[in-house]
Amino acid sequence: MPVKSELLYEGKAKRVYRTGDPDRYLVEFKDDATAFDGLKKGTIARKGEINARLSALFFQVLSRRGVPTHFIEQTGPRELLVRAVEIIPVEVVARNIAAGSLAKRLGLAEGTPLKRPVLEFYYKSDALHDPMINNYHIAALELATDTQIKEMESYAWKVNELLTEFLQPADLVLVDFKLEFGLFHGHVLLADEISPDTCRFWDGTSGEKLDKDRFRRDLGGVEDAYEEVLSRVEKLLQ
Amino acid sequence: MPVKSELLYEGKAKRVYRTGDPDRYLVEFKDDATAFDGLKKGTIARKGEINARLSALFFQVLSRRGVPTHFIEQTGPRELLVRAVEIIPVEVVARNIAAGSLAKRLGLAEGTPLKRPVLEFYYKSDALHDPMINNYHIAALELATDTQIKEMESYAWKVNELLTEFLQPADLVLVDFKLEFGLFHGHVLLADEISPDTCRFWDGTSGEKLDKDRFRRDLGGVEDAYEEVLSRVEKLLQ
Ligand SMILES: Nc1ncnc2c1ncn2[C@@H]1O[C@H](COP(=O)(O)OP(=O)(O)O)[C@@H](O)[C@H]1O
Ligand SMILES: Nc1ncnc2c1ncn2[C@@H]1O[C@H](COP(=O)(O)OP(=O)(O)O)[C@@H](O)[C@H]1O
Ligand SMILES: [Mg+2]
Ligand SMILES: [Mg+2]
Repeated sequence: MPVKSELLYEGKAKRVYRTGDPDRYLVEFKDDATAFDGLKKGTIARKGEINARLSALFFQVLSRRGVPTHFIEQTGPRELLVRAVEIIPVEVVARNIAAGSLAKRLGLAEGTPLKRPVLEFYYKSDALHDPMINNYHIAALELATDTQIKEMESYAWKVNELLTEFLQPADLVLVDFKLEFGLFHGHVLLADEISPDTCRFWDGTSGEKLDKDRFRRDLGGVEDAYEEVLSRVEKLLQ
Repeated sequence: MPVKSELLYEGKAKRVYRTGDPDRYLVEFKDDATAFDGLKKGTIARKGEINARLSALFFQVLSRRGVPTHFIEQTGPRELLVRAVEIIPVEVVARNIAAGSLAKRLGLAEGTPLKRPVLEFYYKSDALHDPMINNYHIAALELATDTQIKEMESYAWKVNELLTEFLQPADLVLVDFKLEFGLFHGHVLLADEISPDTCRFWDGTSGEKLDKDRFRRDLGGVEDAYEEVLSRVEKLLQ
């Protein structure tokens, strides 16, 4: 078992620990939830475990289908062993259906299918409130090279295709999601997490929201929604 | 002389009139100035004349160097005859130095030269407050085709190169500017205006602002700044 050493970083949803191996970190998923740029705070029971498990499963599905990820193995109920990467401070958001900030930005009713899927970049900076940026801003700020931008774009599209298809038999619609990438010995890897905190999942039949929007918008049934996504994904993999 | 017929559209800075020819409009430049999404209103003496003249001169410079524009001829002190286009509702902004909203967005001090010039798209929609968008949003909303987006990008870069070079002997630094394009019988043309209302011009020696920021930020000497730009540009063309 890898040894949990110094706490490197505590974020809003996870703790990152060094291990004996400088190339590997342990990520511990917390039950803490925040929204609206940190203004709303709360706890979602069992979220840490569910998001760790879902991330592990999604990363495995993606690695097997050719997307390089930071995931090595799950080492505890809420703990993943991952490759230690230098996070590229750019959040990559892919969207299939208008929801959240996109619906507001473009004046579309939430739920409007997009005629073409959308990819967006946000500058991961709490101080600047994660502003939307484009590839030129990324280049001007030297946040990533042109090649790295292209790789992130193409991995994000691949994740969108693969997860959309993977989730379809579970009657889960992948509305949108946020990815983070990192550099591992010069290579771009998919990092961070993939969970109801970072994706919008809607029930394909009822349209019910099964993700963090239940917390953001006080819709109730938050824990049940997270559990439901996990149980459907686990069934897919049986 | 073309006949000024029905007023087609009155905007914040100009009036657009039909003429006897359905392919041609007359654009009348007003002295009215607005800023901050219409919250700040005022008048800038002689602005209509200066911006009409400067636009005419800039459009001529650009057409001669291969950028197709809507400009036909100047028909009065504040009036241009132009090709009647269907405006693509996307504002294209090019930037060489951080200023205004970009400085704020990226947390850069105003005046920081960008390591790479930046191009941005904004959705021209008063109701939505002109949100920043990217090429995927444009495609999803069908605001322009992929080819049209590429053409707007490449014309914007060309305008940036040409005007930067053109203004250099007048000791005017082209900090950033906003362009609008339109469709004329299926072809993309540069339209609207190019003036101190839509560009940031800084004096190359003193750094003094010679553009609408003097109005936005109550710096005084607004009219003088507009006159100064016109007189320097006219000298360049003598
Ligand atoms: N494999 C990895 N190596 C290094 N850092 C990572 C890795 N995966 C995720 N991270 C980073 O660890 C932090 C995870 O904690 P989180 O609570 O999500 O933080 P934040 O509040 O910044 O979103 C994030 O900053 C994320 O970018
Ligand atoms: N050649 C043209 N044909 C048709 N419309 C034009 C042309 N050039 C500019 N326009 C449009 O005319 C209007 C000009 O008025 P303006 O006061 O700048 O409007 P706004 O308040 O919308 O910015 C703008 O909507 C602009 O897009
Ligand atoms: Mg995070
Ligand atoms: Mg205008």
